Amino acid sequence: MEKIKEALSDDLLGKTVSIRGWVYRIRSSGKITFIVMRDSTGIIQCIASSENLNDEQMKEISSLTIESSIELSGKLRKEPRAVTGYEISLQSYKIYERNENFPIAKDLGEEFLLDNRHLWLRSREFTAVLKIRSTVFKAFADYFYKEDYYQVQAPMFVSTATEGGSSLFNVDYFGEKVNLTQSSQFYLETLIYSLEKVFTIAPSFRAEKSRTRRHLTEYWHAEGEAAWYSNEDMMADEEKMIKYIIDEVLKNNLEDLEIIKRDINKIKNIKIPFERIKYKDLIEKSKEFGMNLKYGDDLGADEEYGIMVHFDNPIFVTDYPESLKTFYHRPDPDNPGEILCHDLLAPEGYGEVLGGGERIYDLQQLLDRIKENNLNPEDYYWYVDLRKYGSIPHSGFGLGLDRLVMWICGLSNVRETIPYPRTIRRVKP
Amino acid sequence: MEKIKEALSDDLLGKTVSIRGWVYRIRSSGKITFIVMRDSTGIIQCIASSENLNDEQMKEISSLTIESSIELSGKLRKEPRAVTGYEISLQSYKIYERNENFPIAKDLGEEFLLDNRHLWLRSREFTAVLKIRSTVFKAFADYFYKEDYYQVQAPMFVSTATEGGSSLFNVDYFGEKVNLTQSSQFYLETLIYSLEKVFTIAPSFRAEKSRTRRHLTEYWHAEGEAAWYSNEDMMADEEKMIKYIIDEVLKNNLEDLEIIKRDINKIKNIKIPFERIKYKDLIEKSKEFGMNLKYGDDLGADEEYGIMVHFDNPIFVTDYPESLKTFYHRPDPDNPGEILCHDLLAPEGYGEVLGGGERIYDLQQLLDRIKENNLNPEDYYWYVDLRKYGSIPHSGFGLGLDRLVMWICGLSNVRETIPYPRTIRRVKP
Repeated sequence: MEKIKEALSDDLLGKTVSIRGWVYRIRSSGKITFIVMRDSTGIIQCIASSENLNDEQMKEISSLTIESSIELSGKLRKEPRAVTGYEISLQSYKIYERNENFPIAKDLGEEFLLDNRHLWLRSREFTAVLKIRSTVFKAFADYFYKEDYYQVQAPMFVSTATEGGSSLFNVDYFGEKVNLTQSSQFYLETLIYSLEKVFTIAPSFRAEKSRTRRHLTEYWHAEGEAAWYSNEDMMADEEKMIKYIIDEVLKNNLEDLEIIKRDINKIKNIKIPFERIKYKDLIEKSKEFGMNLKYGDDLGADEEYGIMVHFDNPIFVTDYPESLKTFYHRPDPDNPGEILCHDLLAPEGYGEVLGGGERIYDLQQLLDRIKENNLNPEDYYWYVDLRKYGSIPHSGFGLGLDRLVMWICGLSNVRETIPYPRTIRRVKP
Repeated sequence: MEKIKEALSDDLLGKTVSIRGWVYRIRSSGKITFIVMRDSTGIIQCIASSENLNDEQMKEISSLTIESSIELSGKLRKEPRAVTGYEISLQSYKIYERNENFPIAKDLGEEFLLDNRHLWLRSREFTAVLKIRSTVFKAFADYFYKEDYYQVQAPMFVSTATEGGSSLFNVDYFGEKVNLTQSSQFYLETLIYSLEKVFTIAPSFRAEKSRTRRHLTEYWHAEGEAAWYSNEDMMADEEKMIKYIIDEVLKNNLEDLEIIKRDINKIKNIKIPFERIKYKDLIEKSKEFGMNLKYGDDLGADEEYGIMVHFDNPIFVTDYPESLKTFYHRPDPDNPGEILCHDLLAPEGYGEVLGGGERIYDLQQLLDRIKENNLNPEDYYWYVDLRKYGSIPHSGFGLGLDRLVMWICGLSNVRETIPYPRTIRRVKP
């Protein structure tokens, strides 16, 4: 049995090849039936004619419908008019399952397609995106393993909010109320005192009502923390990681990028180091783009789009004002009111895919920041403890893997990057 | 700056080395203070004496407490009496943070230790287990990438029960009730029609009230599905994967296995192929072990322990009676009442770490089994659809990664395998 990709080869010309998969296209013209078959590796044209098959078989073959599953054998030949340049002249076959009408077609409503996501996913475009996604997950982990990080797992059920309580999901936990994690950061921080450099790949949950093209209620979060790292050390690892992932996608998924019509040069030309731009300088620069931002304004999806549409390479935006970031970020001792942090904004208008920076490691400073934010230090007793026992300088980051895939694939909505996207209105299938 | 492991080397004898980390042990004897320092790579003895340090420095050094964080430099020499055979003669140092009394000590209560898990985790034993765990996660993914599987992600928020509704967690999803996933299997099945072979590594959730030594409410689940695979094909991939993981642990974590005092031969001697034993033969065989099981009895933790304590190698238990397994398992056409499935039981009494088998791919058979189990086919519309459109034979499996780590490390409770175990009574820290 050959995979279709293996069958697309001059080495097998004139030989009998066997493939199995699904009917991708089918048309009959008089005494001949053309079937384009697909499997996970590609597509190939097969031709059924009365030369090799009897009348009953011809009837059966020509009655097949899209997405029927079959196994078939026949001689391989070159056929320049066929979709991938080769053709199998069908000699024998076995039908696994003959469909009624496959419900997915062009011009169907969005809701219908979402209800039938389990079938829609079979499209070549989705398949290509999911293959690229698989490479992204592998490359992310490979990069950090290579750099002596350990992969760890933080809990999903939590009782401490990382990013503020407003967007937490509640779970009924044997009669008590607990939350679903928004970020594994605090847990990763607890592990750097023994493992020093750690990363995790896990779902995170945010009950945000935003319906933007880049929000999911459940998303895949890749996070890292590193002992003794400064803000700049962390950015250096991150940009190398991003470059490594892009290189791996270019190495493994060129065909997939073609299927989704991605302009490959847009990612091929990504260069490190990425430019570092201070928040205050970016606010200034945004005026060049006709934007009306002032110091202290938060950068949301629209603002980031307005800025990043003018960039071909990612940028690190650093030194945000304290008021814009969560309490655990370390203030810059040399620039009061600013913090030692960074966001990574992707080009072509994509905007934020990653945020990170130094964490406060001074006990009193952390307690002060918790109080300034009207939080209860007791809720954070274990996080505070880390500053009492062997505290050290350290930095970390959180990367939205779905958003990264969205940018690399050049997609217009983050929902296209994941098999079953969860949004405020959809948890089915 | 050297990592401690790098400093444990004849190449650096007589040279000045610099390390940073935490005080693991400290004792003063007259005019000398011995500090054993630890970092993520190992431990090394450092010696402070008035030869190189002034009175004030000596006082400061001798007042350090366990888990204080410091950076230090000094000449490296051999010292056979020191814990790892080398010693740094301290010349200069920088204290990052001097602790009050570190609260973790021997003979503390279980609850206290669980409340302070974030500090307890720094022990050498935990650190060793987490390093082994990191290797296990990497090796699992590497094995399946090598075998042309794609890594995919299934949703955590679901509205279809895979294993029956009784042990589902409920989430308040913007006012509606949804569940947390128990298994990604059904979603993985939807993806084999395009990607053919897929795996995922993700949390799964079970609201089981069992308080056994091998249950968590939230656990890390590695699942795979493969198109065209028979039950036997699946077992062949699985045993090679297990063997590969063990080999990688033996290659990368020998020191860690020693730290946790694992009898390395127990895992070194694991051989493939694993023995396949039919359920009915195992019931028979259990009589040899003085057990009183009869055909149709479920094998729980106790029964599996009673059996597997007599085995040194894992076994596959196959052909369970239909009554013992969930509705989606494929009945054996040659042996009515039995199903084409397998559980992988680990030796030394560990028992089940993996379950898998063929999935029903005939539409009518699936609908019949859903009805027999008093389930509503409409709840499973998308799972049923897979049997309507291009259905094919396929198999899959689910592996409990925490349990696998438990066995490989020879631990007595699954809670020791994960940084923050979630049980019926604990979601903190």
